[in-house]
Amino acid sequence: MAMYAPPIARLLDELERLPGIGPKSAQRLAYYILRSDAEVAERLAQALVEVKRSIHFCSQCFNFAEGELCEICADVKRDPSVICVVEEPRDVVAIERTGEFHGRYHVLQGAISPIDGIGPDQLRMRELIERIGTGGIEELIVATNPNVEGETTALYIARLAKPLGVRVTRIASGLPVGGDLEYADEVTLGRALEARREM
Amino acid sequence: MAMYAPPIARLLDELERLPGIGPKSAQRLAYYILRSDAEVAERLAQALVEVKRSIHFCSQCFNFAEGELCEICADVKRDPSVICVVEEPRDVVAIERTGEFHGRYHVLQGAISPIDGIGPDQLRMRELIERIGTGGIEELIVATNPNVEGETTALYIARLAKPLGVRVTRIASGLPVGGDLEYADEVTLGRALEARREM
Repeated sequence: MAMYAPPIARLLDELERLPGIGPKSAQRLAYYILRSDAEVAERLAQALVEVKRSIHFCSQCFNFAEGELCEICADVKRDPSVICVVEEPRDVVAIERTGEFHGRYHVLQGAISPIDGIGPDQLRMRELIERIGTGGIEELIVATNPNVEGETTALYIARLAKPLGVRVTRIASGLPVGGDLEYADEVTLGRALEARREM
Repeated sequence: MAMYAPPIARLLDELERLPGIGPKSAQRLAYYILRSDAEVAERLAQALVEVKRSIHFCSQCFNFAEGELCEICADVKRDPSVICVVEEPRDVVAIERTGEFHGRYHVLQGAISPIDGIGPDQLRMRELIERIGTGGIEELIVATNPNVEGETTALYIARLAKPLGVRVTRIASGLPVGGDLEYADEVTLGRALEARREM
């Protein structure tokens, strides 16, 4: 016999499609929903539908946006001469959290990865070059991830943007603040040595 | 400034209310939804609303049910003379998975726990006694959890049901199949010794 009544089975099915949600988590979530007020399920359902209805990509930086432009591109107080290039919208959130960056962003929506069939044409690279072409951009801070794909993407951007007269910088690699030398991997430690600074 | 556009913030908020979902998981889920087809969000939203609309408690055993009776109570092939008493609907699923039980269930919807203010009156205990009162029940298999609350509940049920002429049994405690003697805790090992059987 079926373990679950069909509506429960359907909810479990949909929950298990989500990343990081296995059968056990799906069951826990479904039973939580079943035990809660109908309001909890309804508010979540509405938030899900609403986010898909109202969120699109910013036409300038390709971050998620509610309107034509995202809040950062629409903010006249943000410096339009410095562009931080990141792979994903979540990287924008990570950098915004530091409170250290007051320029604008460009979200590539991925990184160059030949093994996954992702080249520059699958990213928002053309749009980045077009943005540089409109002028007023002095520096690109390339904040792609410090892994093979991110480094490849960074090199590609540097080669493309430098001839256009734009300063291209890369975020530093090194030991995490609060980290232990002993536990650092040798590549990170090597980078930290190489990028040492005068005190 | 706000890190997220309001519809995204709202979805994150609703997701973080769910058990076991922290800010990182909520972000991962929300970004997955944002990247997927609108259909994914809609199907999940519909499953959420539908499960709350159509699932209630079985009027006989208090498991989740789509109709008046759950599928097990409605199944005439299930033996009505043996009732397995469990704490939660998920325990019904666990026991059904074994394929070893062909009787019916009674879901208490919790266990006696004075520290949490849960006494017999907060559980479906009265309904269990009423079921026994209607006759035809020969055995109660008490499958509450083998912890303090579950054992207390089991003792309470035994005291209540035995005078009514019903056989009350308790599921066995012992070493998990495939387990290692070396790694068993001493209480479990003690129980396994105590409940040893003739070979």
